[in-house]
Amino acid sequence: MKNAPTYPISGRGPADHDVRDQIVAAATEHFSRYGYEKTTVSDLAKAIGFSKAYIYKFFESKQAIGEMICANCLREMECAVKAAVDEADRPPEKLRRMFKAIVEASLRLFSEDQKLYEIAASAATEHWQVTLAYEKRIQEMLQAILQEGRQSGDFERKTPLDETAAAIYLVMRPYLNPLILQHSFDSAEEAPAQLSSLVLRSLSP
Amino acid sequence: MKNAPTYPISGRGPADHDVRDQIVAAATEHFSRYGYEKTTVSDLAKAIGFSKAYIYKFFESKQAIGEMICANCLREMECAVKAAVDEADRPPEKLRRMFKAIVEASLRLFSEDQKLYEIAASAATEHWQVTLAYEKRIQEMLQAILQEGRQSGDFERKTPLDETAAAIYLVMRPYLNPLILQHSFDSAEEAPAQLSSLVLRSLSP
Repeated sequence: MKNAPTYPISGRGPADHDVRDQIVAAATEHFSRYGYEKTTVSDLAKAIGFSKAYIYKFFESKQAIGEMICANCLREMECAVKAAVDEADRPPEKLRRMFKAIVEASLRLFSEDQKLYEIAASAATEHWQVTLAYEKRIQEMLQAILQEGRQSGDFERKTPLDETAAAIYLVMRPYLNPLILQHSFDSAEEAPAQLSSLVLRSLSP
Repeated sequence: MKNAPTYPISGRGPADHDVRDQIVAAATEHFSRYGYEKTTVSDLAKAIGFSKAYIYKFFESKQAIGEMICANCLREMECAVKAAVDEADRPPEKLRRMFKAIVEASLRLFSEDQKLYEIAASAATEHWQVTLAYEKRIQEMLQAILQEGRQSGDFERKTPLDETAAAIYLVMRPYLNPLILQHSFDSAEEAPAQLSSLVLRSLSP
């Protein structure tokens, strides 16, 4: 659990952050083995060797731990997407890589960590703040590529930028949201290439 | 249950078809009130006033009844989509109406018949033959509009038709499949207009 976020809660020293990280690391391990839904904070406390009260000192609920794990997961996915986009030079290729990386990152979460995926599904159903923030950052990444492509002359400029960005995001969304993705496995292989080609055709000046 | 399909099963007379229709009509009523998942064939038999054995003479399982109801539902949706498309003259407007009608028909199924929607969800999860056939007919409708638009000069002809059709279908799919649609309520209002505009931009010659 590298790069766990540090919360600006006054009166908490670095030692507290270490404990938080330790709880999140152990919970990730535990959830990925036994599942998120079925595990209680008591189970978790027993497994880690902490008292339940001690865990509650750091996290107010199981969901708070789940949110931290989810945030880490989404940050990893976002980094993978960003890295893929940054590898490309031109905006059209950036957009292609973005589609591809989103589908790959979502599928990886699904196949490698079937149990962690359960957390992402709860997050998406219950509209956890961390998933909304993730969606927003993906939208910003998309908007930046579009803007760059308009400046470079690769993309058309007639359609309002917001409208273009919103429509492309709607096309991407089924592959970002784990609950939707589970119904799109059949098409997940060819979808990124087909959809990014369609989107690029729609963007041609 | 007007227009229930007549099955070409030899040795069965029109009277049998009437009984089948009667069972389907009663089952539709019963499922829409009490839900599909929770109802057994015994419950259904009791509610209709037929014996369980008599129902099994006409349908081999609850799913077989569900499939017939589902087929009727999907046929109604398909008719609504076809009617909307036929109202328009030019291929671009046909495509716009198709997107709009698909979302509206799917949402209607959801809001009016919350319980019947359960059947459609089972159908989509278990890949019932009737839903695959529905998807295929929607794909054919889409392909016909694209072909017409290529002939009229409204749509570009460089991209292979199959590729164009497959990509646009992928964009439509989240709004056709009831399991996916339930995660897209937030965007269901503006989605048809935004997506069809994007798709039309991608088709411009």
